[in-house]
Amino acid sequence: MNPTGRSFGSDNHAGVHPAVMAALAAANTGDATAYGEDELSRRAVAALQAATGAARALLVFNGTAANVLGVGLLIRPYEGVICAESSHLNVDECGAAERVLGTKLLPVPAPDGKLTPELIAGRLAGRGDEHRVQARVVELAQVTEAGTCYSLAELRSLREYCRSEGLLMYLDGARIANAAAHLNCSLADLAACADVLSFGCTKNGAMGAEAVLVMDERLAEGAAFHRKQQMQLGSKLRFLSAQVLALLEDDLWLRNARQANAMAARLAAGLAGLPGVRLAYPVEGNAVFAKVSRDVATALQDWIFHADGPEVRSVVRLMTSFSTTEDDVDALTAAVRRSSDSRETSASA
Amino acid sequence: MNPTGRSFGSDNHAGVHPAVMAALAAANTGDATAYGEDELSRRAVAALQAATGAARALLVFNGTAANVLGVGLLIRPYEGVICAESSHLNVDECGAAERVLGTKLLPVPAPDGKLTPELIAGRLAGRGDEHRVQARVVELAQVTEAGTCYSLAELRSLREYCRSEGLLMYLDGARIANAAAHLNCSLADLAACADVLSFGCTKNGAMGAEAVLVMDERLAEGAAFHRKQQMQLGSKLRFLSAQVLALLEDDLWLRNARQANAMAARLAAGLAGLPGVRLAYPVEGNAVFAKVSRDVATALQDWIFHADGPEVRSVVRLMTSFSTTEDDVDALTAAVRRSSDSRETSASA
Amino acid sequence: MNPTGRSFGSDNHAGVHPAVMAALAAANTGDATAYGEDELSRRAVAALQAATGAARALLVFNGTAANVLGVGLLIRPYEGVICAESSHLNVDECGAAERVLGTKLLPVPAPDGKLTPELIAGRLAGRGDEHRVQARVVELAQVTEAGTCYSLAELRSLREYCRSEGLLMYLDGARIANAAAHLNCSLADLAACADVLSFGCTKNGAMGAEAVLVMDERLAEGAAFHRKQQMQLGSKLRFLSAQVLALLEDDLWLRNARQANAMAARLAAGLAGLPGVRLAYPVEGNAVFAKVSRDVATALQDWIFHADGPEVRSVVRLMTSFSTTEDDVDALTAAVRRSSDSRETSASA
Amino acid sequence: MNPTGRSFGSDNHAGVHPAVMAALAAANTGDATAYGEDELSRRAVAALQAATGAARALLVFNGTAANVLGVGLLIRPYEGVICAESSHLNVDECGAAERVLGTKLLPVPAPDGKLTPELIAGRLAGRGDEHRVQARVVELAQVTEAGTCYSLAELRSLREYCRSEGLLMYLDGARIANAAAHLNCSLADLAACADVLSFGCTKNGAMGAEAVLVMDERLAEGAAFHRKQQMQLGSKLRFLSAQVLALLEDDLWLRNARQANAMAARLAAGLAGLPGVRLAYPVEGNAVFAKVSRDVATALQDWIFHADGPEVRSVVRLMTSFSTTEDDVDALTAAVRRSSDSRETSASA
Repeated sequence: MNPTGRSFGSDNHAGVHPAVMAALAAANTGDATAYGEDELSRRAVAALQAATGAARALLVFNGTAANVLGVGLLIRPYEGVICAESSHLNVDECGAAERVLGTKLLPVPAPDGKLTPELIAGRLAGRGDEHRVQARVVELAQVTEAGTCYSLAELRSLREYCRSEGLLMYLDGARIANAAAHLNCSLADLAACADVLSFGCTKNGAMGAEAVLVMDERLAEGAAFHRKQQMQLGSKLRFLSAQVLALLEDDLWLRNARQANAMAARLAAGLAGLPGVRLAYPVEGNAVFAKVSRDVATALQDWIFHADGPEVRSVVRLMTSFSTTEDDVDALTAAVRRSSDSRETSASA
Repeated sequence: MNPTGRSFGSDNHAGVHPAVMAALAAANTGDATAYGEDELSRRAVAALQAATGAARALLVFNGTAANVLGVGLLIRPYEGVICAESSHLNVDECGAAERVLGTKLLPVPAPDGKLTPELIAGRLAGRGDEHRVQARVVELAQVTEAGTCYSLAELRSLREYCRSEGLLMYLDGARIANAAAHLNCSLADLAACADVLSFGCTKNGAMGAEAVLVMDERLAEGAAFHRKQQMQLGSKLRFLSAQVLALLEDDLWLRNARQANAMAARLAAGLAGLPGVRLAYPVEGNAVFAKVSRDVATALQDWIFHADGPEVRSVVRLMTSFSTTEDDVDALTAAVRRSSDSRETSASA
Repeated sequence: MNPTGRSFGSDNHAGVHPAVMAALAAANTGDATAYGEDELSRRAVAALQAATGAARALLVFNGTAANVLGVGLLIRPYEGVICAESSHLNVDECGAAERVLGTKLLPVPAPDGKLTPELIAGRLAGRGDEHRVQARVVELAQVTEAGTCYSLAELRSLREYCRSEGLLMYLDGARIANAAAHLNCSLADLAACADVLSFGCTKNGAMGAEAVLVMDERLAEGAAFHRKQQMQLGSKLRFLSAQVLALLEDDLWLRNARQANAMAARLAAGLAGLPGVRLAYPVEGNAVFAKVSRDVATALQDWIFHADGPEVRSVVRLMTSFSTTEDDVDALTAAVRRSSDSRETSASA
Repeated sequence: MNPTGRSFGSDNHAGVHPAVMAALAAANTGDATAYGEDELSRRAVAALQAATGAARALLVFNGTAANVLGVGLLIRPYEGVICAESSHLNVDECGAAERVLGTKLLPVPAPDGKLTPELIAGRLAGRGDEHRVQARVVELAQVTEAGTCYSLAELRSLREYCRSEGLLMYLDGARIANAAAHLNCSLADLAACADVLSFGCTKNGAMGAEAVLVMDERLAEGAAFHRKQQMQLGSKLRFLSAQVLALLEDDLWLRNARQANAMAARLAAGLAGLPGVRLAYPVEGNAVFAKVSRDVATALQDWIFHADGPEVRSVVRLMTSFSTTEDDVDALTAAVRRSSDSRETSASA
């Protein structure tokens, strides 16, 4: 039983931050030019560029689209994308990159979701061989799918390695806010380590909006056309722009991410000592991955809102969001403790 | 000068209907499952199916995406789509269908935007010839790009013709509400004439949401995967669903469309008698196409909000929306009359 | 009845020139490196470059592949190809360009198959508008699908126009030999008018081989990878190379084309005066297009070897090849005269 | 030094079998209908169907094209192909499947190149989940890239497993002749284990031709259009057909494969006992993979004709072909023995 109404199943289960909702209402004043030629959209683009140092910013509808548009700016069809085997691009986007870009992904097993120069080097065989897809882009996620973060030093080392090998870098920033919060760095610090990146808003309090940031103007050629052709140009674009502006205003994006991260840390701390629970990865964002016993897994079903029923996995992903509270976390922790207790009780009976 | 704040440049220039905005706020209560497994999304799909007789309904982000997903359910890469040369699919979607579906469009010049069995027949050469793309789908828009409507009799005749020729029909319903208002028929009446169609919400009071309706379950196979792979699966989907539900509630979609149509009719009536203005097509939806003199064209610049500057075309498209008022229309008509008057005055001086 | 065994249905109905067949046998001496790293392939590439001034030459299997590879070197998915509506690329390649390149063709009605700066200019609307596919390449065929040739002056004027408009030129040279023969110019003269072109061998005496010629090294980047990814890299490539070398040796390609052209001219002269026959286009290569009466059309069925049965079109295409003889032509002309005579006889009876 | 003129670098280094060359010359008698409507092509298709039980046979230019066309008949863009990580489709086709089909490959590490039901089962996670590419086809090669063969029992067990899981099977038969020779079974025995397969001719004595065999007529719908759109329809198709017919005549394909296999076996036997050489995989076709010392690797450079220079790998692939003789093999073995001897001599010095 989950009396809180809170889901730990995904940061997409959260609603919209009140400030974002207010911004949407405020944007709804009369008529405005469509397709980004309105005042709010101009301001959103300018704010994104100011916050990150990007030469170009383009809003799209969702994270898959941001990844495909972003990678697509860096690649030709015979070039490939080195990525972690567990990456969203490789696993969770139903082959969008393959279909829309006609390109091949070159996945690398990466135990904690993080690429290294060594792992990348292992995927560079066959360069110059016309029978082989040519590695051209390295895609990495910050935060990764395992909830881990690259340090700035790691990112810079990857950046240097990629440059030395003629590789471009795309950073999937669906949770880049959580990474900035964890590393206590600016968006610009992170953006400087990529050629193109996304700035995720949806999971961090928006209703539905993501930004693609192109760091070098030369890579942005044709970007507006690619966005349109990839079916990602919103007509009433001011309503995406308003969301982005609301998150950038007074660093709401950062406050939201800090709250989510803090709740994940609290959750990890609460679970860490319990029987039947073992953390699978370092908690460096808003995700807690835990190997759990069957009893604990069963107890968690109500807390993750997944519609696909009673499947019980041994590794459970618990996500927090800007709206998760200490009470929510403590209630979940207590529920897990109870399930562990009851198991022990019944075991000792 | 345009003192009204109203744009006649596009129905995409309108804001969001207050009832839709209220529904978005109401949907923002706590956490909910993502990707359409929430209560609002289930209700939206059910309501769409009930209103149209569709076997399946899928929400997407914009009209281009609805067209590509919808057509894509009906076609293999070597099959082609017969469409009006002026169609949105052919002209205004930056080649999305060609890129995402790998398919060829087979455009037909259609003076008033409307296809006929004869025009379609003229595109059927080469069936069975492996060197030729095989015509398989007929795409038509209701309302058309010229602001005209097919009558129900015309649609049924096209439907019958297509069936007899083994062709499937896709109806681009970005403005299907305006057509239903004009024809005084139900959505189901229109939907029954298509294999797949879109139900446009964005131009009719929504913030950004369109539905793809599949009339036969067998055609829907894989539709959910296509949507995801085409980057059109919203994570916080309840907020698209809430918009659709708000429009379906008490037939708001129909009231909005009637208002827009009535304002277009008023505008057409007001302009019809003026010197320097000649209507280009029958006004059967919310668009008024007018051939205008240079002076009138110049006077209209302020009223269409187009960012691309001082280009003055001889045929001007004026769009109304749910939020256009009689005062807005009358002010525009008066401005055109003044520009005509001043021209006559200066001409007679 | 056709006692000659000769087909006028297509230049693809001809066999292989004896010199080409001999070259294939001569190439079959022991083992050689695959995929173009053999001596014959190096010589073929060098000979093609020497004959045309190309920076790069790549062999492919057929004409459709040459067009797709060639156009693909010049274009991104959101860019379009202006071409004659009747072009092979648009009509006869089953949508290969759309599928493999994801690009849109922008066809222009061109009565005699030839584009002009004016026709191209009419297709340039919407440049810079992100909703529109951006015209980037002009594709023209030399000889055209109507059997007509651009003069060198026309080509140079098109070239200049394209340069001034930022357009690149692709020349479909499936029958470029016939054009060079007609214009009495060199391959280099024609190649200088294009950015990329094909050099057709199959219809001109080869068994099956075409070359893609890239005039500027910068446009050739990645060409070898595109060829492989487009499934056009032959493994025992020496056998394609041997065909090309045989045709280039002592200008066999030119002699073959002259023979074909001369036979087409003889055929046109023979048919010109006959009742029930009217030439549809100037005969400037190896094709004769004739509007014919039903009787003549029926009489021609045996001479065009088409498998698709008794369809009788009013415009018939008659093709000659390197192997067509004067006797073949005269026999065909006589047969047409007989069919005209018999019609007149029966008409006068 | 390699005095034999024979390459062990690839079976693509071999020339054309004299009987195939004679058939090509014999096919060059006058004119014939193009694109497969000629007598030779009809006979080739009939012979392929008779030999394999296929419902449909289509000739294409090379092995990559056969794989892409064959897999493409079984799959929609959101469906994936389970294949061995080392498969030609995954490694050596420059991403053709991804580009032309828009599909994702789902590679599985398979130490000896062979898939098993267990390996396939490990790739079936996420069926029904719209975020995941849906496994639909299992691709396997017979002979594999490691030179190993599936037994008929293994193939039948895979077939049964695939059926039970709703998976279709594509068999890459670039070297299916070698497998039939090894297993002493018919082509029909192998074909019965697949839904679609290729019959490789090029590596087995042809100049350049492969066949795609579709076992069930329902899967062949549209196949001719796919072939054309994928740029694989030869115009003078009789010359591909003649090659196939020559190989099928009196089982030349089988005699060629037996010769190649016998020479590989002889080579393996000759190398097996030598110092500095260890066979990497069972030799079940015409490939011998050997882990070799640096000295042996160096000695082998002259025998593999690779143009890419002095790279010396520790695992060397040695291929035999229909034209490899006992003398060729014995000369190679002797050369390896000498390089081992000299090393031992210098080591003991």
